[in-house]
Amino acid sequence: MINNTVTKVLQIRHPIIQAPMAGGVTTSELVAEVSNCGGLGMIGAGYMTPGQMEEQIREIKKLTQNFFGVNLFVPTEFKVNDNEIKTANQLLNPIRAKLNVQDDNKEIPASKKMVETFHQQVKVILEEKVPVCSFTFGIPSSEVINELKQNGTVVIGTATTVNEAVEIEKCGMDMVVVQGSEAGGHRGNFLEGHQESQIGLFSLVPQVVDNVGIPVIAAGGIMDGRGLQAAICLGAKAVQMGTAFLTCMESGASELHKDEILHTPEDQTVFTRSFSGKWARGIKNRFISELENREESLPNFPVQNKLTKEIRKAATQQNNREYMSIWSGQSPRLAKKQTVKSLIESIVK
Amino acid sequence: MINNTVTKVLQIRHPIIQAPMAGGVTTSELVAEVSNCGGLGMIGAGYMTPGQMEEQIREIKKLTQNFFGVNLFVPTEFKVNDNEIKTANQLLNPIRAKLNVQDDNKEIPASKKMVETFHQQVKVILEEKVPVCSFTFGIPSSEVINELKQNGTVVIGTATTVNEAVEIEKCGMDMVVVQGSEAGGHRGNFLEGHQESQIGLFSLVPQVVDNVGIPVIAAGGIMDGRGLQAAICLGAKAVQMGTAFLTCMESGASELHKDEILHTPEDQTVFTRSFSGKWARGIKNRFISELENREESLPNFPVQNKLTKEIRKAATQQNNREYMSIWSGQSPRLAKKQTVKSLIESIVK
Repeated sequence: MINNTVTKVLQIRHPIIQAPMAGGVTTSELVAEVSNCGGLGMIGAGYMTPGQMEEQIREIKKLTQNFFGVNLFVPTEFKVNDNEIKTANQLLNPIRAKLNVQDDNKEIPASKKMVETFHQQVKVILEEKVPVCSFTFGIPSSEVINELKQNGTVVIGTATTVNEAVEIEKCGMDMVVVQGSEAGGHRGNFLEGHQESQIGLFSLVPQVVDNVGIPVIAAGGIMDGRGLQAAICLGAKAVQMGTAFLTCMESGASELHKDEILHTPEDQTVFTRSFSGKWARGIKNRFISELENREESLPNFPVQNKLTKEIRKAATQQNNREYMSIWSGQSPRLAKKQTVKSLIESIVK
Repeated sequence: MINNTVTKVLQIRHPIIQAPMAGGVTTSELVAEVSNCGGLGMIGAGYMTPGQMEEQIREIKKLTQNFFGVNLFVPTEFKVNDNEIKTANQLLNPIRAKLNVQDDNKEIPASKKMVETFHQQVKVILEEKVPVCSFTFGIPSSEVINELKQNGTVVIGTATTVNEAVEIEKCGMDMVVVQGSEAGGHRGNFLEGHQESQIGLFSLVPQVVDNVGIPVIAAGGIMDGRGLQAAICLGAKAVQMGTAFLTCMESGASELHKDEILHTPEDQTVFTRSFSGKWARGIKNRFISELENREESLPNFPVQNKLTKEIRKAATQQNNREYMSIWSGQSPRLAKKQTVKSLIESIVK
């Protein structure tokens, strides 16, 4: 067992954090079981309404006495550009026709509305006294950070470069998750561009550790005990694992998504911004390749995410791998279909 | 100390291999000192004539009694396309004018000539009974592999994906270097495309280890004892380090190249094929950004390499960082200017 500041502050037996995957993966069963097995379960609440958050937090409290956490997306200013949306729709309409879905332009999100929702989400964390709150896509205001900390919540930031980690420490956050280029799903970069922020975890961890005083949590491609031990050697105090938990029985990912990860070699994931307007790593499919040459021109997150929502939903319902987002890190060969308990036990044995 | 098959077979005290950086970095002093300090020194002989190789091998034998190695580039078929060369020259001529160098089209390499040179290089390895020979950019014929092995030379391949490592094992090589996306200099991919082969070392090592029986040597972003220990945790038996040795006193890299690495943050290296026609990781400069949008159209290696040779040489002589190739891995913040002895001692202490 590895005892350190992270396990102590997060009140966990093992330095293992389940990555807060948004979009329905982090069921209450998954989150509570991770916490019950000695890790830290996390709700990926980025896309949730405050009401949904409150409901799930209360459900999890019934399922576990242990610490758990919630992850929020820090809203960034974005402009809605009608021309970009028109171009995107021209690309998406043939796909919508193929999948029999309506176009999806009724509720284009507005920047102001996103900020409001974010503050309501923070309010839920405060009211429910959630033990841990992590942030992705940026740094919230110092008011938010201080309020959470004064309320007893441990606050964690997400960085992809040394600079981003240094800023997170400066803003008073308690810990930092460093996301290597191996990681599946959305990139957490917020100060640097997509190219600059593609640092392999082997390089990223020791360089961040040398430049910040707060504990570093390693994320990206970690799937088993070898990865945990290696991360500790590089100076991390804990690991955050996404793909390994996504294929667990308790996860809410679709069976097709799980099967895709279980049958994909390590060289078949790519970065794409076609699904959401933000760069993310997933398994190659027709949606990614069809939009590949146009992806730089697509609207920013969360506009593009809204435009593709019904496509992703229909593809999943129709068991059509070609048009859903199959997020995965670069270690799919190490994924197993198993319970959370057997995963965590195999890591720490 | 870590004792295993690699240290035993390579007759080294420490599981540390100095990466065979081509282009003048691996001076006899560097190679011999690494071997004298308990690691494995390697000559980067990719661009050398058989005569230059023979001379350096004999020089190193005078400087060390220990095992050392030579790395060769496996030649791949390439076509010389006059239109591509014309386009490349249009891009390069303004830079040549700026640096006052002649254009450099007199000796465009021919595929057949490269294969001949390669076989002469192998002959030198055989005649000099060099203890270790590693290959990059592909797998040599089974005749070459068998001849070297029967002559007592340990044969090592270079892979960037699981598939490539599996092929290297099938061909009877003794060990495999796996090169993570963090690595500086040229990419070793030969079966997969550039995109597919960008696997972070954290993901690459355990997935290769699970799929081959030969020992795995981890390369890419490793700079210190933390990296060595982490690589061993992931299942590697040794590490190969480039950038860390490049900035050593004994290395033949220019002072400007060393200084650039020592003053660059981790997010300022990029992949480019503008220097050589093969993708390689180096520190951003004007040459890379000026050719960035055209690099897909440039001639293949080694044609583009020949076209830029005088530019790189002149830029180095003129201390002009903007037009030289400043190869570096993704951990430049961990680089130090030190002796080989102090580097190796600090790793294994």
